[in-house]
Amino acid sequence: MSEQLSYRDVGVDLEAGDRAKVGLKDLVASTADRFTLSELGSFGGLYQVPEGGDAQVLVASADGAGTKLKLAFATGRHDSVGHCLVNHCVNDILVQGARPLFFLDYLAVGEMDEDVVQEVVRGVAVGCKENDCALLGGETAQMRDFYAPGEYDLAGFVVGIVDRSLIIDGSRIESGDLLVGLHSSGLHTNGYTLARRIVFDVMGLSVDDELPGTGRSVGEELLSVHRSYLPVFKRLFDTGVIRGLAHVTGGGIPGNLPRVLPDGLGATVDRGSWRVPSVFQTLQDAGNVDRCEMDRVFNMGIGMIAIVSEHDVDAVAASAAERGIGSRVIGRIVPGEGVAYQ
Amino acid sequence: MSEQLSYRDVGVDLEAGDRAKVGLKDLVASTADRFTLSELGSFGGLYQVPEGGDAQVLVASADGAGTKLKLAFATGRHDSVGHCLVNHCVNDILVQGARPLFFLDYLAVGEMDEDVVQEVVRGVAVGCKENDCALLGGETAQMRDFYAPGEYDLAGFVVGIVDRSLIIDGSRIESGDLLVGLHSSGLHTNGYTLARRIVFDVMGLSVDDELPGTGRSVGEELLSVHRSYLPVFKRLFDTGVIRGLAHVTGGGIPGNLPRVLPDGLGATVDRGSWRVPSVFQTLQDAGNVDRCEMDRVFNMGIGMIAIVSEHDVDAVAASAAERGIGSRVIGRIVPGEGVAYQ
Repeated sequence: MSEQLSYRDVGVDLEAGDRAKVGLKDLVASTADRFTLSELGSFGGLYQVPEGGDAQVLVASADGAGTKLKLAFATGRHDSVGHCLVNHCVNDILVQGARPLFFLDYLAVGEMDEDVVQEVVRGVAVGCKENDCALLGGETAQMRDFYAPGEYDLAGFVVGIVDRSLIIDGSRIESGDLLVGLHSSGLHTNGYTLARRIVFDVMGLSVDDELPGTGRSVGEELLSVHRSYLPVFKRLFDTGVIRGLAHVTGGGIPGNLPRVLPDGLGATVDRGSWRVPSVFQTLQDAGNVDRCEMDRVFNMGIGMIAIVSEHDVDAVAASAAERGIGSRVIGRIVPGEGVAYQ
Repeated sequence: MSEQLSYRDVGVDLEAGDRAKVGLKDLVASTADRFTLSELGSFGGLYQVPEGGDAQVLVASADGAGTKLKLAFATGRHDSVGHCLVNHCVNDILVQGARPLFFLDYLAVGEMDEDVVQEVVRGVAVGCKENDCALLGGETAQMRDFYAPGEYDLAGFVVGIVDRSLIIDGSRIESGDLLVGLHSSGLHTNGYTLARRIVFDVMGLSVDDELPGTGRSVGEELLSVHRSYLPVFKRLFDTGVIRGLAHVTGGGIPGNLPRVLPDGLGATVDRGSWRVPSVFQTLQDAGNVDRCEMDRVFNMGIGMIAIVSEHDVDAVAASAAERGIGSRVIGRIVPGEGVAYQ
């Protein structure tokens, strides 16, 4: 007779999974709005389509927290990565003019540590509240053969809405329009595989050491929350001043700005028009990274680019400033294709 | 001067990522319908809210493929896990009466193998087509420090729609209603951590060996596609005969059926009412697993349970039979709570 096997014996603890869910119920409930019709624990989350015109369009995006998670593992601070993920997803649909309705997360763990799960989902819930977005559901998967002890992966999925007539598709962008770059709050959620190699391997720092030039520890600097630009733009969408928006994520400005430009138009970007934050200069110097490679991997201090006519630069700058976010005109739209740096 | 570092040097190949996306464009396009307004490559996927009443409700669910993925790694067959994932998510919203609108996937890889990525997403696209569901977007993340070479994780998100008046919430379920169990197509997407332990460690089989009692190889049996029950039920929703639906996933019948029952009602399930497929008996015997534990971990041959009045059993059975799916009355609703086996 062979040894008797159960699910717990092979590393899957359904009860711990359930308990973790129970602890999250209040958190999740705090993000609900009047359109949220379900509670945690139903098979699917229910969200009533808000009243609106006949041509409402859902805008959806999926993303992962990426290797920024390694910083959470190293510091034991698990609250900011979920917040980053929500803001990242919200920015991704914002560029089409959408405001978020709801969010779902996917959290895959090796072993179920309830405290860590709650901390991660707390960050997700905080991000949802910040963006007036219901945390409608999620999945917590136990996969011991996939993830090292203490490690996990985190992905998220946002659904937003926009009137069809207000979708920002770049079609109104014209040669001569200006690029308003909005300051990022750090690395956001991109370039962490390279940043970690430089900081930990090349520089030999630990998470508690000061990251030279930043006045902050490695952990603080690299876990800075990815900024949501929703508050800056949501009041501007009705005005029509926003002709295009590009979220500067993996691929940097050269990889993302062309995605929103119509055929026949490119952009020039003036590298000297904004101050690159110290964290990027430190990484570039210590890693001996080519500046063009830096531009493709990191946001270099510009997290979102708004494309507007020159008359409307002030409206964007004022809305950003009201939210404490700096901005600069960093370039312009020109005939051609792609992004040329000056 | 330190060695010069680039993103490719640290294992992130943006160009390979882009190429993989290009190869997927046709696949994704093949799932589009007249409400799909975006192509792959935009920041967010656009999906117009279909025409309908004033009270349409979105139903969303997130899930992962789970450790069934290890079978894909072991066999080199990467096409079925994505299909399983879509069907799993579709079933999860089906139980509330929703039909799917669109799906997004999250695929996290250690190294970017374009062939594997395409194979996985091909399976996702096939699942989407089967369920008349647009593959609206997705994220492919390269995370070399997270996943072993040749391994990946896969999660998905589905959004469906239902008229508010047609939401199945279990409120019409009455004592005396019958449970119609619909046959599963195998393990579906649950219990793989235990199944793999038994098959590979206890039984010492490899993926090409025959799984005793099944007449199929371990790989074939354990990679069977999770069945979608959408075709069985979508034509029944308007008729009102479906009082409740439970998708039998992790937790088995005891873990899932009570989730859809109103307070004060439980269910009795007659274990002898259906033939448990050989794969489950083989796992139970070889692993010396307690039957109650089997019931909590596996679907035991019943992938979906419909709760109907006794007059409506035939309507469900006929619709299932038309789709080649067997069904049995496996129990009934009784006063009380939880599930009691007989």
